[in-house]
Amino acid sequence: MITVDEALAEVLGRVTLLPAEMADLMETRHRILRQVIQADRDFPPFNRAAMDGFAVRSLDTSAPNATLTIVGEVRAGMWPDTALDAGQAIRIMTGAPVPEGADAVVQVERTKSKDDTVLIEVVVASGLNIVRQGAEALAGAELLPAGVRIQASHLAVLASVGEVQPAVSVRPRVTVLVTGDEVIAPGSRPTAAQIRNANGPALMALIEEAGGIASDATVVSDDPAATRSAIQAAFDSGCDVVVLSGGVSAGDFDFVEGALSDLGVTLHVTSVRVKPGAPFVFGTRGQTLIFGLPGNPVSAQVTFELFVRPALLKMQGAAAVARPLLEATLDGTLVNRSGRRNYLPVCAVRKAGLLVAKPIATQGSGDVVAHALANALAILEPDQTQALAGDLLTLHPLSSFLEAPLHA
Amino acid sequence: MITVDEALAEVLGRVTLLPAEMADLMETRHRILRQVIQADRDFPPFNRAAMDGFAVRSLDTSAPNATLTIVGEVRAGMWPDTALDAGQAIRIMTGAPVPEGADAVVQVERTKSKDDTVLIEVVVASGLNIVRQGAEALAGAELLPAGVRIQASHLAVLASVGEVQPAVSVRPRVTVLVTGDEVIAPGSRPTAAQIRNANGPALMALIEEAGGIASDATVVSDDPAATRSAIQAAFDSGCDVVVLSGGVSAGDFDFVEGALSDLGVTLHVTSVRVKPGAPFVFGTRGQTLIFGLPGNPVSAQVTFELFVRPALLKMQGAAAVARPLLEATLDGTLVNRSGRRNYLPVCAVRKAGLLVAKPIATQGSGDVVAHALANALAILEPDQTQALAGDLLTLHPLSSFLEAPLHA
Repeated sequence: MITVDEALAEVLGRVTLLPAEMADLMETRHRILRQVIQADRDFPPFNRAAMDGFAVRSLDTSAPNATLTIVGEVRAGMWPDTALDAGQAIRIMTGAPVPEGADAVVQVERTKSKDDTVLIEVVVASGLNIVRQGAEALAGAELLPAGVRIQASHLAVLASVGEVQPAVSVRPRVTVLVTGDEVIAPGSRPTAAQIRNANGPALMALIEEAGGIASDATVVSDDPAATRSAIQAAFDSGCDVVVLSGGVSAGDFDFVEGALSDLGVTLHVTSVRVKPGAPFVFGTRGQTLIFGLPGNPVSAQVTFELFVRPALLKMQGAAAVARPLLEATLDGTLVNRSGRRNYLPVCAVRKAGLLVAKPIATQGSGDVVAHALANALAILEPDQTQALAGDLLTLHPLSSFLEAPLHA
Repeated sequence: MITVDEALAEVLGRVTLLPAEMADLMETRHRILRQVIQADRDFPPFNRAAMDGFAVRSLDTSAPNATLTIVGEVRAGMWPDTALDAGQAIRIMTGAPVPEGADAVVQVERTKSKDDTVLIEVVVASGLNIVRQGAEALAGAELLPAGVRIQASHLAVLASVGEVQPAVSVRPRVTVLVTGDEVIAPGSRPTAAQIRNANGPALMALIEEAGGIASDATVVSDDPAATRSAIQAAFDSGCDVVVLSGGVSAGDFDFVEGALSDLGVTLHVTSVRVKPGAPFVFGTRGQTLIFGLPGNPVSAQVTFELFVRPALLKMQGAAAVARPLLEATLDGTLVNRSGRRNYLPVCAVRKAGLLVAKPIATQGSGDVVAHALANALAILEPDQTQALAGDLLTLHPLSSFLEAPLHA
């Protein structure tokens, strides 16, 4: 058995970078930027007024209550047609270019104007309320590196420099196969021994969240020929990744490993020291990645988070693929009898300026409710058999972490 | 001027809940669940084998190396047709119902089988590797409360209980208006005094991230009639929310407040003790919410995060709408001369088990690049003029927080 970190390194080392393509700005959200974004001109492109008020010469306003003559007005979007001489002021709006001759902007609230004169009540220092041309970025400067996962804030940068068709990664196409004779469609009525397909919808959503395009989840029966032919069909579809759940443990009816071997897949990982998720396999066939996740739905979701998500992000050229881990104080008790690294469901909430992790009672790797109520997974290392109230733990936040926790 | 918390309370107090609708399971991701989800049967629905191996009677295996007679086999999806008597074992697969008479499952790796007999090498205690019927949830138990923002993990629960058309909130329709004579489309070439529309794409993306449906962002010129008619058109469209940027400060060419007043909007918030974002207004007209955000793009994004996002989530029935705040140690210096609560861009990274916040150099509320490189905002209270290296600060994480930070 290898460690989680060793398995992840093995997976990431087998990833091939997907090509880039141009996409419309509003279609690039959550995709991976594949080009460096540079300033196409200085930002700001001129000395910009940061307030509504009057452009002045600070030499004229070195004492309070200077009276100046208003000689013009400049609005945002206009280029000033007047320069400023001694004793003069120009009315200016936020975002407008500061006229030549002026070296400060005084807020309208600090002035009194009447007809053609304005009283500047305060002392105004040189540079006040002006953002100098190029202060944010000089023309040609790198604004965003390649590898960024594009969020709203990045769209503001792309729009500012006119990158309306940036280069982003092609999205990985992922085939989802759920094995198990007991598995029926979520809309069907199960007989006593059947269960509905929880892994299909969860894995499809996780794939989309990681930037992939998921196939409809196909249910495959526990039969060697059916397993082989479903995997062959996935390969024939030309997808980039195959994600299977179930059929990978040591049982007599686990056909996935055999089918993969028959179809020329090289297995690189067959056993990881992790709970939930021990029956996890990873292989490749040419540039196609194949992940065999456990059938238990919590195990499937956790191993996806640990191994498949980073692989999908790396294929897209993401600069970094790990979740930001967090420290929290345990409010309760956690037990790890597995001898493996154990990821346990917790709800992390802020209490008196501390991040506190409350354990969520779980029946184990089939308990989809416990996992759904968690916003993070507490990590217990293989040799850590328990954690007690007050212990400091490392948390792996889940995608629900940035929503407000429900168990505060 | 009121505080951020007072302004938020004012906004949330004016929110009307949107109706719910049924949606297809795979279309519910990131939407707000509007019904309680109950177990439609016990989970698990039977005593479930947690391992591949043999179902046994623990009385037979109270000493190591018991030899039992194999009398059958039960696979997942099958109902066992044989009960277990003394001295017998039944081959069983993970996920299958445990046959009557058996009270434990021993892992296949702890056994040696030959023909019709199996050697159980270890002592097997009652209950081992069995998840009892109803242990995860009893039929009728509440599995998910209304108000959850649906993630992949919740889809697993919905699918498990056959909720393929759950009730979720209708998505709020939001009109985006960007004011300013200087603003041109991102795909256009600006003259010296013009800037490209950064707020439109950023606000549209933020609206979608908060579950809303954003209109295309319309640019409105700095003119009273144009401003009034654009806002009137938004009202006529029947949208739930209008988000304006620009035109709300004290300048002579800021027409938004006047236009809102002309159109019968009641303003509830006109000034908040916050930086960036002081020129922020909030009003209502019937059940329509109107947000006047500042024109500076960082101010617009921050005030959206502080006020509009929570309002959109609450309209959809979210149980909780605040971001989970985090504590971090400052690695650098931050200054707050505003006398207001100041949200400053930082990059939060984990170092030696501590969350550390590195300030990102910024030129202020126009500096879209600094904001795009941040994964969190450090909060300095109005009376806190500076924070020094080693100080503990509160962070407001941004949506990029769960991606790996680029500045580690």
